[in-house]
Amino acid sequence: MTPTETVNEFMRLVCANELAAAAAMCTEDVEYDNVPMGKNLGRQAMIDLLTPMIGNMDAVDFIVHREAETGSIVMNERTDRFTKGDKSADIVVAGVFELSEAGEIALWRDYFDLAAVAEITNLLS
Amino acid sequence: MTPTETVNEFMRLVCANELAAAAAMCTEDVEYDNVPMGKNLGRQAMIDLLTPMIGNMDAVDFIVHREAETGSIVMNERTDRFTKGDKSADIVVAGVFELSEAGEIALWRDYFDLAAVAEITNLLS
Repeated sequence: MTPTETVNEFMRLVCANELAAAAAMCTEDVEYDNVPMGKNLGRQAMIDLLTPMIGNMDAVDFIVHREAETGSIVMNERTDRFTKGDKSADIVVAGVFELSEAGEIALWRDYFDLAAVAEITNLLS
Repeated sequence: MTPTETVNEFMRLVCANELAAAAAMCTEDVEYDNVPMGKNLGRQAMIDLLTPMIGNMDAVDFIVHREAETGSIVMNERTDRFTKGDKSADIVVAGVFELSEAGEIALWRDYFDLAAVAEITNLLS
C-alpha cells in the first residue's frame, strides 16, 4: 500500500468502529493529536479517545476532499460526519499523517476549530 | 517552479508584506478561506484581509513543519508567528493550496482553532 492508501484504509477502519484493527496499523507509540484538545500517545490512548467518539454513533464518515502525499507524509482535507439517529453533525478538518519506515502510522494530527466540536458533543448527549 | 515551490514563494511574499506581488501569483478569483472566519474571493479581497494582519506587525513568519504535494494540491503544516515589538504570538495551522493549470494559486485555505486568533488580536490592539 502507498502511504495514502494506508491512511485511507486506516480511516476506513476507524469509521467502521474497528478500532483494534485501526490501532494495529499504527506504531506502538503513535501520536494522535487533536490540535485544540491535546495529544494522546500510544495505541491504547488512541483507542480510548475514539471509543466514545465512534462507538456512540450510528455512522461515522470521513469524507476526503483533497489529499496530498510526499515521502512518508500524507495530508488530507476532510468533512468528518457523525450521525446518530436522524441527526448528523459535520466537522471540517485538515489531517496530517506521518508513517514510520515500516509503513505504520506514527502521527495522526487533525486541525479544526474547537467550537465545531460542541455540535458533536450535543449529538452525544 | 513546482507547486510546492510556488506556494513557498507565495508565502515568502506574504510574510514580507509584498502583498501585491503575492496576489499576482494567484488567479483573479482566488479563494482565500480562513475556515472558522469565512471565505474571501478575489485578489483584492485577499489583499484587504492581509493588509492589517501583516502590515501592522514587525515580522511575520510562516514556519513550515511538513508539506505534501500531489498534482495541483499542496498542503502544509505550519506555525504562523506574528511579532510586534517584544511580543509574538503563534498560530498552528494546516494549509491547503490548489493551483490552476497555469500554475497560479486558486485556493488558499487554512484550518486552525479560532480561539488562537484572540492572541493575535490582542497583539494588534
